[in-house]
Amino acid sequence: MKPTKILFTRFLLVFCLILTLFVTQAFQAMAGGRLVDLTHPFDETTIYWPTSKPFLLKKVHEGVTPKGFWYESNDISGSEHGGTHLDAPAHFARGKWHVDDIPLERLIAPGIVVDVRKRALNDPDYLISRQDFLDWENRHGKIPQNTTVLVLTGWESFWPDKKKYLGTDRPGDVKNLHFPGFSADAARFLVKERHLGAVGLDTPSLDYGQSKDFMAHQIFGEANVPGFENVCNLSTLPARGFRVIALPMKIGKGSGAPLRIVAEIN
Amino acid sequence: MKPTKILFTRFLLVFCLILTLFVTQAFQAMAGGRLVDLTHPFDETTIYWPTSKPFLLKKVHEGVTPKGFWYESNDISGSEHGGTHLDAPAHFARGKWHVDDIPLERLIAPGIVVDVRKRALNDPDYLISRQDFLDWENRHGKIPQNTTVLVLTGWESFWPDKKKYLGTDRPGDVKNLHFPGFSADAARFLVKERHLGAVGLDTPSLDYGQSKDFMAHQIFGEANVPGFENVCNLSTLPARGFRVIALPMKIGKGSGAPLRIVAEIN
Repeated sequence: MKPTKILFTRFLLVFCLILTLFVTQAFQAMAGGRLVDLTHPFDETTIYWPTSKPFLLKKVHEGVTPKGFWYESNDISGSEHGGTHLDAPAHFARGKWHVDDIPLERLIAPGIVVDVRKRALNDPDYLISRQDFLDWENRHGKIPQNTTVLVLTGWESFWPDKKKYLGTDRPGDVKNLHFPGFSADAARFLVKERHLGAVGLDTPSLDYGQSKDFMAHQIFGEANVPGFENVCNLSTLPARGFRVIALPMKIGKGSGAPLRIVAEIN
Repeated sequence: MKPTKILFTRFLLVFCLILTLFVTQAFQAMAGGRLVDLTHPFDETTIYWPTSKPFLLKKVHEGVTPKGFWYESNDISGSEHGGTHLDAPAHFARGKWHVDDIPLERLIAPGIVVDVRKRALNDPDYLISRQDFLDWENRHGKIPQNTTVLVLTGWESFWPDKKKYLGTDRPGDVKNLHFPGFSADAARFLVKERHLGAVGLDTPSLDYGQSKDFMAHQIFGEANVPGFENVCNLSTLPARGFRVIALPMKIGKGSGAPLRIVAEIN
């Protein structure tokens, strides 16, 4: 064969290989990735704040009707803030987004998991720090803008044991709340220096249990950053390479809402 | 230039063009498509079944706390079945999936819109027919298995006018319900011959207003097909080429649930 012919054949081979790769990738992406549910169910074990109205499922009908067909129906009630739920920015920041104001692009976005279990699991008053995110960046690169930042403290493994998860199982007892949350410095870092899109974790609150001023809530709220609380199954996710799909019940003027949150792994 | 060289150059041009196309497509698909919210908000105008407990948002706190920061919180209550919501198969079919049993792959899947406005808008007792789907298939090809089939009757344009949307605005008045729904024959066709994944429409119910036996509910329920009711903005979607992301509140043993439903257009 002539040298040009050999070159052409080699080129054709490489071309086909690259094309196959991209076509596969495109089809995979369009078909969607593997789905992981990050949501606790709402039932009689669902954990709410000690002062909040818990979830109640009240049976309206369950059985065969006089007309001969099966029929089940229930009423539901509870606080906006309990179980796996959304904190709208308006929860702690006047005039900021309510549930129904949040653009879908903030709720469906690329996500990362920052694993702080080594520091948090032995310290029920752990404050998630700026250093936790810098450590993650050392291994995975700078957190891109508009990322949904999820923090795995390990608290998800205590659910639904109220005493271990909240620090107390007594209704109204807010003095003995103990679980990790974001330090004000970490919240400011994520907002001002990393321009995150949304934030979430596997504890009952963005602020740690002993917080009295709820600074993380205030900082994220002022920046119109939605918060996802009582998230679970974060330990099954990779550090990056997935999309978070976080769809709250669309409560008009809600300060929060029950949230169904799912990861779609690329 | 030699003929081989000319061929090579042309080939290179075509190669670059095709590659660019696929790379663009892959990146677009990975970044996600345009998002459209198909959900009515929950507020004092939200339409519920005349016999159901309506949605209630009860303020717990709104204002500056003694500690000096802003705080808003509410309690919510209502029937599982109202506003934009999910009907779990268990609603009308004993032993079938409750809300928390439904696999995520049934909730996040490729969708189509079947526009029956020409037939339905002048007939508040319209029964969506097998022919409506065959007509769609004549233009767009056979409905693939596991598709989320959405039907646009045009009823979404009457929301939130109860008299027009339900046929009645009197509490408890189920005798005067008038709106389109699926015929039993259409439900059987979609289940047995098209093996759909989920079903939805822009009216209050899978069955038409005057139904007494709720056959569409029974047929879809028996086949473990989740239903999405009081969906909106279907008139803004293409007939196909989008994904439906339908995430209900994860109610343990729920027969239905408030639903956030979104389309992602390719």
